[in-house]
Amino acid sequence: MRLSRYLLPVSRETPAGAEIVSHQLMLRAGLIRQTAAGIYAWLPLGLRVLDRIASIVRREQDRAGALEMLMPTIQPADLWRQSGRYDAYGPEMLRIGDRHGREMLYGPTNEEMVTAIFRDCVRSYRDLPRILYHIQWKFRDEVRPRFGVMRGREFLMKDAYSFDMDMDGGRASYDAMFTAYLKTFAALGLRAVPVRAPSGPIGGDLSHEFHILADTGESEIFYDAALDDIDLRDAAAPERLRTLYAMEAEEHAKVANCPVPPDRLARRRGIEVGHIFFFGTKYSAAMGLEVQAADGGMVTPLMGSYGIGVSRLAGAIIEASHDEAGIIWPESVAPFDLGLVNLRPDDPACAEACAGLEDRLEAQGRTVLHDDREARGGEKFATMDLIGLPWVVTVGPRGLATGTVELKRRSTGERHELSMESLLARFGGVASGTAA
Amino acid sequence: MRLSRYLLPVSRETPAGAEIVSHQLMLRAGLIRQTAAGIYAWLPLGLRVLDRIASIVRREQDRAGALEMLMPTIQPADLWRQSGRYDAYGPEMLRIGDRHGREMLYGPTNEEMVTAIFRDCVRSYRDLPRILYHIQWKFRDEVRPRFGVMRGREFLMKDAYSFDMDMDGGRASYDAMFTAYLKTFAALGLRAVPVRAPSGPIGGDLSHEFHILADTGESEIFYDAALDDIDLRDAAAPERLRTLYAMEAEEHAKVANCPVPPDRLARRRGIEVGHIFFFGTKYSAAMGLEVQAADGGMVTPLMGSYGIGVSRLAGAIIEASHDEAGIIWPESVAPFDLGLVNLRPDDPACAEACAGLEDRLEAQGRTVLHDDREARGGEKFATMDLIGLPWVVTVGPRGLATGTVELKRRSTGERHELSMESLLARFGGVASGTAA
Repeated sequence: MRLSRYLLPVSRETPAGAEIVSHQLMLRAGLIRQTAAGIYAWLPLGLRVLDRIASIVRREQDRAGALEMLMPTIQPADLWRQSGRYDAYGPEMLRIGDRHGREMLYGPTNEEMVTAIFRDCVRSYRDLPRILYHIQWKFRDEVRPRFGVMRGREFLMKDAYSFDMDMDGGRASYDAMFTAYLKTFAALGLRAVPVRAPSGPIGGDLSHEFHILADTGESEIFYDAALDDIDLRDAAAPERLRTLYAMEAEEHAKVANCPVPPDRLARRRGIEVGHIFFFGTKYSAAMGLEVQAADGGMVTPLMGSYGIGVSRLAGAIIEASHDEAGIIWPESVAPFDLGLVNLRPDDPACAEACAGLEDRLEAQGRTVLHDDREARGGEKFATMDLIGLPWVVTVGPRGLATGTVELKRRSTGERHELSMESLLARFGGVASGTAA
Repeated sequence: MRLSRYLLPVSRETPAGAEIVSHQLMLRAGLIRQTAAGIYAWLPLGLRVLDRIASIVRREQDRAGALEMLMPTIQPADLWRQSGRYDAYGPEMLRIGDRHGREMLYGPTNEEMVTAIFRDCVRSYRDLPRILYHIQWKFRDEVRPRFGVMRGREFLMKDAYSFDMDMDGGRASYDAMFTAYLKTFAALGLRAVPVRAPSGPIGGDLSHEFHILADTGESEIFYDAALDDIDLRDAAAPERLRTLYAMEAEEHAKVANCPVPPDRLARRRGIEVGHIFFFGTKYSAAMGLEVQAADGGMVTPLMGSYGIGVSRLAGAIIEASHDEAGIIWPESVAPFDLGLVNLRPDDPACAEACAGLEDRLEAQGRTVLHDDREARGGEKFATMDLIGLPWVVTVGPRGLATGTVELKRRSTGERHELSMESLLARFGGVASGTAA
């Protein structure tokens, strides 16, 4: 993609009203624009990140056996009356009257709707267990939206719902999602801490929040520092992570005898990016969902719900990965794999070399943002640092004279010269966006 | 994908209240479920179709140089006051008050918002021309929603907006979208007729609707029968299609001297699936969008908008492609490339052969829906016919004894026996979903 044909409104100034660094950087790097309080448009560069995050979330849900569907944003109030939540939900629910005066709402979550759909579609134990999910925009009318996409009103969420015949099945579904979440966050380049959450009506170990550690997090987490040493690639990591102590401050304060010795008790701030929760028959019983069991009797399925804040993750990743010059995207979610800076677009040799590099890298499956604009080198480098592409290739007349270009790694700042052929070999033909 | 782990609630009965065949078939084939009047959830099979349609639309927009972004569903009323449309729009607009009493609405279209974003992001002629698009849910509060997703209230639309410095540029953007639309519909397996529409304030040949010919269409189209003979693969096809006569009945009635001889004037019903429209400075002038020209003066950009009804297309394709047994998906949008029917899941040899075929076909990039359920063959074939996968492979003990399986083509009903190796070779390693 040539920057001269793209839409990338970057800014050097810290935008007014943006309190935290991810909000500032998302505005400055041209990822988003606010269109109303807590509501954002995703500009082309931002949408690429959002799509890549959603793809990773989707991939891990699919691998865990969950089935993707898509529920609408607007729901009838009657559904929520069936569960008793319509009156209970409070002013965060965006309530709407349609032209015929029917009470509707913009879904803040989908337990009621998915339960009704399952009730409508499934009759027999043969169709269980199932985990259904969708990635859809939600609305919560926050009284004071802030922190950009981290606490917006219209936000993109992955929410999954499990349906099981019995508690063993329910626990298996929960465990599958627990593991899928750890894989998801690891694939996003994040270290997520599963924090034991108050578990509601069922009790037991079946409610966790997943927090990204970052100084600007809204939550305070106490956890066993042994967590920091766990290798997420290890197959036993999920079980280890689940057994080690981690609590939000409020819950931690209630713990009479913390099992972690004081010198191993870490205290960090965290951003909640996921929440999984097993609630048994809460909605299925209230809404009359029953299926026929193998013995002919009727059973009320057990359910759980599993959420990931997809749009919030874009901000959380930036909170966890930036420096003074801008964003440092993990390769798995970077909007482009490489930046390509032409120092002299008016020089035909440079223009030709850059056009050739762009074409060949893209033919090799790499996405490239090619800065072909008439602008000073310093401005181009500052833009690349700000938008945080993992690798930046710089082409100028001096290097070209000896057949070399410069490759810079954004995360370390390390740079070196190499031939164009070495560059192409290094970013060889692989399907994913990972570098050699 | 194994059907025993999928969610596919098919039905033999014609659903009450579904008037047209696409609505009936989408419900019967387990593609959608209604959740409120004119509002639908997309079940896993339906979402796969919707995603494939959206991918083709996206690909052709990208190839035409349009940039994808994503605007939110909820808009502030103030934006629409700037264009003067807030009061004019009428009861189809879903108006919403938020918790602070601010007037909001669920976007029925995005001219105002994209103009405001462009005004906020772009200052110079160097950043024009641009075409921005998004694929996002819209809401129009139809007084009488009907025909399933064809005239729903919450619907998925691709809407693009062009910004140009002058009329030559505007015409070039319009032409690029015109051609992209023809390519899009052809890639979807549809024959779309571009119908000249009333052109509004600018005049000229810069407003077209695209109609799919189908007996259940809501519009009546008069057109030059020579249109039917145009080969869409021909590079000159767009220009030919644009010059040949085609009008909606209402506009046709106003034409004093129709240029088409009566014996060549065809009359068919059509489903509108796209609309492109150049409207000059209507929104840019009203909303104060100006950019600096090369000579330093300020210019009000010219705009056009370009819509495709993505969710409606799922219904329109079925209207154009079905038979008494069910849907006949074009290969480009089919939810799975192949169905795989195991006639005897209780027979270990059949089960093993089917598992192997599924794995190998998927390794070759084909998507497979594998009916591994304990059910009668007749029921399995009826389901495959109903859901309309392009190819169905049947595996049974008799064929396996001689090493063969049966391959059936849904569109023609033609079937023949072949070895598993021949089958795998026929659906060989190609990236796209087209058959050999």
